[in-house]
Order: sequence, then C-alpha cells, then structure tokens
Amino acid sequence: MTPTKPTETNAQGLDAYLDANASRNQDELFDFLRIPSVSARSEHNADTARAAEWLAESLRTAGMEAKVHRTEGHPIVVAEWRGAGKGAPTVLVYGHYDVQPAEPLELWESPAFEPTIRDGRIYARGSVDDKGQLYLHVKAIQAHLATRGTLPCNVVVVAEGEEEVGSEHLPGFVEEHKGLLAADVVVISDSAMFAPGSPSILSSLRGLAYFEINVTGPAVDLHSGSYGGAVVNPAMALARILATLHDADGRVTIPGFYDRVREWTSVERDAVKRLPFEEAHFREETGATALGGEKGYTVLERLWARPTCEVNGLLSGYTGEGAKTVLPSKAMAKVSCRLVPDQEPAEIERLMKAHVERVAPAGVVVDVKHLHGGRPWRNEPSGRFVDAARRALARAYDKEAVIVGEGGSIPIVGDFERILGAPVLLIGFGLPGENAHAPNEWMSVENFHKGTQAITAFYEEIARSATP
Amino acid sequence: MTPTKPTETNAQGLDAYLDANASRNQDELFDFLRIPSVSARSEHNADTARAAEWLAESLRTAGMEAKVHRTEGHPIVVAEWRGAGKGAPTVLVYGHYDVQPAEPLELWESPAFEPTIRDGRIYARGSVDDKGQLYLHVKAIQAHLATRGTLPCNVVVVAEGEEEVGSEHLPGFVEEHKGLLAADVVVISDSAMFAPGSPSILSSLRGLAYFEINVTGPAVDLHSGSYGGAVVNPAMALARILATLHDADGRVTIPGFYDRVREWTSVERDAVKRLPFEEAHFREETGATALGGEKGYTVLERLWARPTCEVNGLLSGYTGEGAKTVLPSKAMAKVSCRLVPDQEPAEIERLMKAHVERVAPAGVVVDVKHLHGGRPWRNEPSGRFVDAARRALARAYDKEAVIVGEGGSIPIVGDFERILGAPVLLIGFGLPGENAHAPNEWMSVENFHKGTQAITAFYEEIARSATP
Repeated sequence: MTPTKPTETNAQGLDAYLDANASRNQDELFDFLRIPSVSARSEHNADTARAAEWLAESLRTAGMEAKVHRTEGHPIVVAEWRGAGKGAPTVLVYGHYDVQPAEPLELWESPAFEPTIRDGRIYARGSVDDKGQLYLHVKAIQAHLATRGTLPCNVVVVAEGEEEVGSEHLPGFVEEHKGLLAADVVVISDSAMFAPGSPSILSSLRGLAYFEINVTGPAVDLHSGSYGGAVVNPAMALARILATLHDADGRVTIPGFYDRVREWTSVERDAVKRLPFEEAHFREETGATALGGEKGYTVLERLWARPTCEVNGLLSGYTGEGAKTVLPSKAMAKVSCRLVPDQEPAEIERLMKAHVERVAPAGVVVDVKHLHGGRPWRNEPSGRFVDAARRALARAYDKEAVIVGEGGSIPIVGDFERILGAPVLLIGFGLPGENAHAPNEWMSVENFHKGTQAITAFYEEIARSATP
Repeated sequence: MTPTKPTETNAQGLDAYLDANASRNQDELFDFLRIPSVSARSEHNADTARAAEWLAESLRTAGMEAKVHRTEGHPIVVAEWRGAGKGAPTVLVYGHYDVQPAEPLELWESPAFEPTIRDGRIYARGSVDDKGQLYLHVKAIQAHLATRGTLPCNVVVVAEGEEEVGSEHLPGFVEEHKGLLAADVVVISDSAMFAPGSPSILSSLRGLAYFEINVTGPAVDLHSGSYGGAVVNPAMALARILATLHDADGRVTIPGFYDRVREWTSVERDAVKRLPFEEAHFREETGATALGGEKGYTVLERLWARPTCEVNGLLSGYTGEGAKTVLPSKAMAKVSCRLVPDQEPAEIERLMKAHVERVAPAGVVVDVKHLHGGRPWRNEPSGRFVDAARRALARAYDKEAVIVGEGGSIPIVGDFERILGAPVLLIGFGLPGENAHAPNEWMSVENFHKGTQAITAFYEEIARSATP
C-alpha cells in the first residue's frame, strides 16, 4: 500500500486522529517492512533504494517536502516542514531505513520480510530496528499537520540507509548540509525501553570497532592425515589468537585497551543499582544457562559502563554434514569491541592490530581489517526538550520516564552533536528481548501506537514549554 | 562410456596389451570419475549407488563375477575370480568408490567431476583417492584374463562406498562374509608414493577419532551491543576450549592423550632419517610460510609417528560480507585426532569428552559428538607377497621400493588383519601434493599406467615365487 492522505480529514483532536488511523498506520508500516533493504548486501541495493523512495513518499504524504539525496553508498532521505518560522525552534528527527541481514532464515518463525502479528508483536526484520521507530515519527508529524495544519516547531527528518554498515556517508552529508539540518535538538528513536510500560530516555551509548581477522596457512586445504602435525593449522591458530583476548576474569587483555576508559563514579553506579532490574529475568530472556562477563561489575554496568570484545562470526574449513578430514587453508573471525567514553575506535584498531600481530604464531599469515567504527557517547539529559519529552512520555505511558544506558551503538549521535552543535535526545520504543539483529525481530504493537502518541504529545509539550 | 570387452583380443604379452589399451583404460577411468559418489552427502546417494553398479559392471567386463551387496549404508561391491583353484593363494584387493565432498567448488580450476588432464595429471575428485588407484587393479586383473585367460592366484575384489565417512558397514560385512573374502594377503592402493618415481610400500598408518563440538549459549543470536559483555559468547568459549588442546610446544594437552603412544625406537627413527626428504620442498608444497608441530620431532616423525589434534572446520554467527553485530547463539568446530599405535579411538573419545567438559565455561552448553574413528596400524612388510610386490614395483619403476609411513588413516586395514587373519600390503600410487580431500585433487597419468603395470607384474611375480 502506498501511503495516501488519510480520509478522516475531519478528525478533531490528535488522539482521535491517531485512534482513527491506527490500523492504517500499521498497514503502511507493514509495507515499509516488506522491502528487504539490507544495506550490507549489494544484491539488495535496489531494495534499499526502493525503501528510500517509499519513505520519501510517505513523508510527502505526511505534509513535508522530501528529497532523496544520492550518495556514494545508499541514499539519504531528507524531509522538511518549516511552517513554524525562523523564530521557532527546529527539531531534527534521525532514523534509518536499512536493516540487518535476516540470516539465518531457517530460524524465523514467519518470513523476515512478511510482517506477522503474534502475541501483540509485529515480527519482521527492521520492525524495531529501525523502521517501526522511524515511521512512528512520520505518523506523529502527520497527525499534527493533518489535524491542525501546523506544528509548534520546524521539523526536519533525516533518514539514512547505511546505519547497519557503519553510516559511512552520513557524517560527510551532515557536514555538507549543515544549513539544511541545523537544529536545536536531534531526536532519535532507535533503542529500547528499560522494561515494558517503562518509558526511557538514554544517557549513554557504547561505541564500536568492528574487525575481520583472516588467518591463512597452507595455500589450499590439505589432507589432515597426510599433513596434520607438521603444518600450522590456521583454524587452531585463530582459536589461540581469540583465546588471548580475555583473561579468566573476563577482562580484555589487549594491552592499553582500558587506558582511556572513564570509570563510573559511585553516584552513577548507585543510580543504576536503583533501577528495577532483575538479573534472573534478563538471563531467562537470553536463554543462556548462566550469565557471564567482567568480574567486579553488575550486569547493567557490564552492558552500559564497560567495553567488550566479542566474536560475531567464525568460518573455516569444512562445516557441512558429517566428517571431512581437511586441514583448512584459511580461518576467519569477525570480532568487535563495544567501546565506552573516552575510548577511540581508531586507537582500538591500532591496539587490536598490534596485539594480534604479537600473538600470531609463525607459519600463518594474519590480516586484521577494521570494517567500521563509531565513538561511544554519554550525556546527562536535561533542558527544555528533555523536559518536554519526559512530560510527553508520562502522558502516553502514564508513568515517569527512567534514565538508562544502552550497550548498543548509534555512532551518528556523536557526529550530530559535533557537527550541528545540538544536543541529542534518545527516546527508544523497543523492548528487551526484541531480537534486533537476530531472527524473529519484533516490535510491540502497543509501543508502535504509544510511541506515535508520545511523539505527537512531544510536539504539543514543546509548544507548552515555549509559552511562558 | 560403459566398459566393454577390449577389441585387441589378439594382444600377446601383458605389456603389449596394457600399451594397446592405455587410452581406453584412461577413458573408462574418466567415466568412473564423472560419477559424484560423495558418500557424506545424502543428496548424492543415487550417484554413490550408480558408482557401485558401474564398478561391478567393469569388474564383470574384466572377467570376474561381481555382485553389488546392499547394506544399511552405501553398497559394497564384491567380485571373484577363483580359476586358480583351491591349492593356489588368494589375493583380496580392497578399494573404495566413494569420494570426499568437492567443496569449496570455486577453488577448483576445472570442475571436480569433469576429469581434465593438465601437466600430466588427471584432475578430478576421486582421481587418486581412490577411484584411480582402485581402477588400476581392475585393469591389471583384466590384462591377465584377457591375454592369458588365467591368473596365478585367486583374486577377490571388495570395494566399499563409505571409506570417506568411516567405513561403518564394512567390518560387519567382512565378518559376515569371512568365507567369501578369505585371503592370504590383502592388497590396498589408497596412499601415496614417497616421491615421484620412488615406488613405496607402507609400514604404518595413523588412526582417527573425529569429533564435532557444539557450543550453545543464548537461545537465539543476540544484538552484540544490547547483550555483549553480560552473556557468555559461545564462539569465544569455543575458541578458548580449542586453545586448551595444545601447549606452546605443540603437544596435545588432553590428559592421558599420550599414555598409550608407543615411542619409536632409535633404529626406527634412524631409518626414517635416511629417507631422501627435503623439508624445504615439503614446506613449498604446502604453500605455508613456515612448518610447525610438536617440538622434538622431525617433520616425518610428526606425520608418521606422532598423534595430532586438528581443527577441520569452524562455524558460528555471521560469516557473510561486511559487518553484523551479532552475539551468536551457537558455535561449532569439527576436531579430529590422528592416532598412532597403541592409541584407541574409543579411549580418545572418552579423554576428549572429559577434557572439554572440564574446560568448558559456565553459561554455555557444550556437546562433543564422536562422528567416527579408526585404529592406527603398524607392520614391518615382509614375506612372499611383499617380496613379489618389491620385484613388481622395481620392474615397473626401474627403482627399488622404499618402506615409508603414512599420516592418513585407512581404518579397515586393522579390521582386515583382525577378521581375516591375513597381512595387509599397502602399495600406493598417489604422489605428494596430490590434493586428496582438497580442491584440484589429481593423480599422475604416468602413475595410473605404471601402477597398472606394477599390479599386472605383481601377479606374474606371485607365480614366480610360487614356483621353486
């Protein structure tokens, strides 16, 4: 379904409008989710381009002027509504229309690109990361413009198609289009609430340094009998390299890795301890038999305050059915570090490369490629827009927002602050266990609707805060 | 091409016959190689059955009575020629018509199942392991029966289709058909010569214990940001487990692993040191930048006298193009040990399972499956049939045979000796660097022909040794 002007043009209040259009909004989101805009896979380039066009059209329908900007990579969609005039504040909404690869497909209970509702959840790749969360902003803007013909502030929407592959072209685009994107606050919904029914504002994000390690031994796969024992096995060498990345206490052992880590103060740690977090429930949610991590820190500290080093993928030799007695020629690992302030991706890259080079055995050639990185971010939310967001969230959820951290990364957050000089306000409508980046990703149906209400209310609250 | 009676029925001598039929024999081998009888892959079951039928038909054409015996797995082909009578000795020829999987296909320079000659080599999956080496026996038998109408001994050929997946049904079959397969010597060509032009008789084989290790952490792949640092990463856990399998000197650290290893005597070690082996040439052949292995042993000792533990495959998480920030749910390794006398696969299985269980961290579930095993073998070649083989090899190659070891495994060797009480004579016609189990497997064109000559001569030499 292509987004069209809603027929309920006579709807009076914003809430009545949202209620009347709830089903239509969800149908439109489903169309958005059906486009497999997998930015990491070049075979999906046409789909990714189609998602950009679809989004631009939906922004036009909402009442904005929208343009699809070509880049060297995937396009960037920008939409403007500047009817509030030069004296009014400007809100920049950021989101991304690209999604993670859906593999392994066989683990999806319903097709990744055919949105399906089960148990009050919209199951689809991109449902919560980030199409659903981006689209609720579009619908909130539309609610104002359709019912009132205006907004209490100027609004610019910028949506990229490369968030899942490192946002390579966005910082340059923002730099080049500083005037177009100039704003008083940047609002992003690309994260999760702390718990169901508990609206949340983020105060920190981890950064990222993502590597691919390739170990090459013999020129071709060898017979493990005829050569085994006399040739260095690259898969074994890789395993031994990976095993040097942590000590027995779960601390990363790359020399210098923690040098720039800003330890949390006891006040900050205490604030996190006061959050209603149930470790047993978190463990159940993961399905693991026990939790793990760095000694001396709580689970939430491990997720928000501490950097990590994780294996994201492994591939070597024969991986099919049965036995093949091969001594592999190559072994590959995807390894990524989550970073916290003030770690720098470029420095972590240097440290990782130096460490791997130092521990790699003779007889294999080891190559460490840095695929992409992003800076960590931390900020205490305060000010006029944060206050408006708190009031809007309380209205939609009938509950005060909590201030929380996030273990994931939204690298562009730091870039927006740096380039535009505007604070970033992170209000997520995902939920724990939402399977972002995993099979059976979902977004709560309720949060899609309440999120739309909250953002709609946010613009009303901005008007309220602007009026003495 | 289906094997047919050769037209040159008037050929007088064996050599003239072999020369006249060289091209036909090779064409027939090519047809055999075109059948993708990959025993490890159930989708190739029909091909594997077809290879058995093809082989049986070629044995009939050679002048034998052949039958395809069904088993619970792939069929076993048995052919008999008993024209020499009860007083004459019986030779049992063993080979296998199944082949290793051909993957990774993209590394083959010509298609794996379309035999292609380049630089005097027949490139095809199974060319040397073992179709080419099995088929030269068929052609040697045919040479005698076609030119002389008789052989100086009774000959039984037994060929299985499960050698590459552990020969599960062969020992039981041999046990059940002891009478049919009763022999004075078992001859096997499924190994390599020590060097080009240097005919070789094997005195040892390593055994095998092949495992699949599966590590499971969270129930599904998780977002490495939202969960990373607080959940035990199964890929990292697997790497750490694999890294515990060796110490810095390349010794396997599984407790008890070496307990039953019979160390070679200084006499045995000296004999190996006298072989014309060039370490630099061996390294070049592998394409590795340096060799490796257990401290305190030469390369040939590492290959023939020492057990190993190798990773054959690794798979976990995201392995495609680009970056995917996933914390994998599962990680898998194929790991196999090559064994030497008197190690026992069943005991190594117990030791491996106990070791992995001991080192596995909390937070993951580790499962170790023993996929298949085979006992190691060692024997000093001597006696009437070995002498006949030495003379035959010297005739075909104009060079004395060397006695060598082999790092690979032919588990059935020990079973033949145990069940039939007959010594096994291992005469290989492969060559170093032949890429058995790897892309671009090849057999030397010259060795296919000289091997046929040598085996043809072997039957003549048996006649000579039988006559006082």
